Amino acid sequence: MSDAKRPVGVALVGMGTVGTEVLRYMETNGDELAARIGAPLELRGIAVRDTSKDRGVDSSLLTDDPVSLTLREDVDVVVEVMGGIDIAKPLLIGALNAGKAVVTANKALLAEYTDELAEAADSTESDLYFEAAVAGAIPVLGPLRRSMAGDQVERVVGIVNGTTNFILSEMDSTGAAYSETLAEASRLGYAEADPTADVEGYDAAAKAAILASIAFHSRVTAKDVYREGISAITPAQFESARHMECTIKLLALCEKVRRSDGTEAVSARVYPALIPLGHPLASVDGAYNAVVVEAEAAGRLMFYGQGAGGAPTASAVLGDLVAAARNKVMGGRAPGESTYRALPVATIDDVVTRYHVSMSVHDRAGVLSQVAAEFSNHGVSIAQVRQTESEQGAELVVLTHRAAERDLAATVSALSEMDSVREIVSVIRLEGEDQ
Amino acid sequence: MSDAKRPVGVALVGMGTVGTEVLRYMETNGDELAARIGAPLELRGIAVRDTSKDRGVDSSLLTDDPVSLTLREDVDVVVEVMGGIDIAKPLLIGALNAGKAVVTANKALLAEYTDELAEAADSTESDLYFEAAVAGAIPVLGPLRRSMAGDQVERVVGIVNGTTNFILSEMDSTGAAYSETLAEASRLGYAEADPTADVEGYDAAAKAAILASIAFHSRVTAKDVYREGISAITPAQFESARHMECTIKLLALCEKVRRSDGTEAVSARVYPALIPLGHPLASVDGAYNAVVVEAEAAGRLMFYGQGAGGAPTASAVLGDLVAAARNKVMGGRAPGESTYRALPVATIDDVVTRYHVSMSVHDRAGVLSQVAAEFSNHGVSIAQVRQTESEQGAELVVLTHRAAERDLAATVSALSEMDSVREIVSVIRLEGEDQ
Repeated sequence: MSDAKRPVGVALVGMGTVGTEVLRYMETNGDELAARIGAPLELRGIAVRDTSKDRGVDSSLLTDDPVSLTLREDVDVVVEVMGGIDIAKPLLIGALNAGKAVVTANKALLAEYTDELAEAADSTESDLYFEAAVAGAIPVLGPLRRSMAGDQVERVVGIVNGTTNFILSEMDSTGAAYSETLAEASRLGYAEADPTADVEGYDAAAKAAILASIAFHSRVTAKDVYREGISAITPAQFESARHMECTIKLLALCEKVRRSDGTEAVSARVYPALIPLGHPLASVDGAYNAVVVEAEAAGRLMFYGQGAGGAPTASAVLGDLVAAARNKVMGGRAPGESTYRALPVATIDDVVTRYHVSMSVHDRAGVLSQVAAEFSNHGVSIAQVRQTESEQGAELVVLTHRAAERDLAATVSALSEMDSVREIVSVIRLEGEDQ
Repeated sequence: MSDAKRPVGVALVGMGTVGTEVLRYMETNGDELAARIGAPLELRGIAVRDTSKDRGVDSSLLTDDPVSLTLREDVDVVVEVMGGIDIAKPLLIGALNAGKAVVTANKALLAEYTDELAEAADSTESDLYFEAAVAGAIPVLGPLRRSMAGDQVERVVGIVNGTTNFILSEMDSTGAAYSETLAEASRLGYAEADPTADVEGYDAAAKAAILASIAFHSRVTAKDVYREGISAITPAQFESARHMECTIKLLALCEKVRRSDGTEAVSARVYPALIPLGHPLASVDGAYNAVVVEAEAAGRLMFYGQGAGGAPTASAVLGDLVAAARNKVMGGRAPGESTYRALPVATIDDVVTRYHVSMSVHDRAGVLSQVAAEFSNHGVSIAQVRQTESEQGAELVVLTHRAAERDLAATVSALSEMDSVREIVSVIRLEGEDQ
């Protein structure tokens, strides 16, 4: 620790809400951070698109040349909070190849290119930290990688997107339709002008890929993640959820599955699902995030907190920055990406779960038995059936026992061709029961 | 990483429920642990009191001489799950002085002697890990020390004792008295033969000391922690809790407080308190633990899971073992104890919170105004008063706004001397509102 006083040089790339908060904390808490690191942090520069814009910082720190900034001799740690892939990817790979530690919140980049980033990090034994990429302020990746390092993670189930959780919580409490609720979310600033990435589950899928990779020491990328969004969720589905003492949440699920051929694989998927009101995730409302980790020895753990926002995300970035800077001062390296298990990725067909199928049927004798027969023909066992009469005719609601997606899908397509079935109104999965 | 294949030697001290589980996982998951560490773990021996007892392990591994075992040349990491202070303290200090990494679950030892352990660890730059000492499987110390390293923790509030949480949950749901419920807890194995350490809050106080020390980078020991147990909690208190839409939990609270002289200090305290049903801790029932961390940037986080038991505790021990072993292989050192802030410890008098005071009074005119006057004389402002008639006479229930303990205490002693006040029936604090 002779050189414990040598300052640690930091390059900040991007100065949006998160970057601004990171900067603010570096300034206001500089002494504390120095005490925790063993040396002071020194900001070498801030890369932004437009250096002419006044950002309330010493303008001599601003540059529109992130590459030169991050490769400076006196830069030890690169903090990337700019987002996007085209510029960030080569930038961070270059920084890692140059032996800089990298702290990033860039989930889109990580969900696709962690392999290339990790390879660059390994080539110089540099640190690559990205706690802020998943669930904002909530420490999830650190605990998975470090605290659970002696355990076997079996399943990770999370509410990792605040926009969709806000919308679904609202729909549940107000009974309003999806479109109105989305409009309200936009008014309140919970949804972006183009909400596609959130409401169609792309954001959650990127996070699921990152979580699955770390939880199972295997590589899962965003395109490996099965994905359904929430735009088709209806007030009627919330009503039947209530009948079953459930609510509906957009879940990111990562679990080890046994495929039909007996081999082990990783399943990563994002979809809206029924969960029992007694499940810890059921009461996670509004813009909050939560991640449940189930492990062989630890049992069920839950991590809960704010999943987005400038300050919460900055908290995660700063935690990583302190760790990376500390390693520069004290030596050592954070656990790198480990994919030694290299489990294959399961398709949605391999998933086994429970299903809630509601269909409108012609109100004639024997319909129920015909429908029931179709389920059993495909080896899907029925747990409950509810038959209701309405002006539109009869409706059948079937809740299955655990069944394979492939069998359920075959059942549903067969049902949709039956004369006595007017329409398959909705198919939604039930999760969190056996968890 | 040239020597990445050199095995890491482990000495296990103690083979109770936790030690047995640790051993089982080391055996069944050996290859996975090796992949995560970068080298295999090798068990050098197990120190137990009675080596003659059959424990289903190769008896040549057993020894009743923990000192010689832990100081063996080929031991890199010492895992202590024996408990107690007299033997463990010199043993672990000796091991750290000899450059061994230490992983311990010994909260009693840590709550009193972390300074001496940390000094020994620093003298040889060895690792000292103790995640398992607080909240079993729940990663709390790691996240506080690493993930929150860039943030400012303002408050830590936890349910960290499963026995008392089971008893209080039961009293709340059944309306039964404390003594009956304790008896049931013993029958079910949730309470020990001598439950004092749990029900009187000593166990929680040790954990509060450890949490406060890490959260505020200061030294807090068990004797610094203000402590009240749950043995005086009555069904009547749960009833008035329900009136206020609250429940009663035994809380471990650690927070920064501003003392009357304006200086900053750390308050660490354990007592049963009312918390609103909407607070995340209110729904933590049975033997579960949960810790809420409030930080400047992150906001409110909650960590939830199993706080005790062989396997859950082993999960935390193993996570630390992997980290310590990894540092032996890869170099580097975990963040050590840091007490640079060296904040003084506040007394209970410095604490500011809300109070629920119920007293039986003589049913005569003007009682309420006299009682109210006594509160205001001491600068304690009243939020609500409820007056009820019962066969024992009139009862007054007062809920205060936030007030200093010293003022509330003065108020209560003054009230107890008023002619019109028969008896102060109960004083219980209200927490978790502004959190």
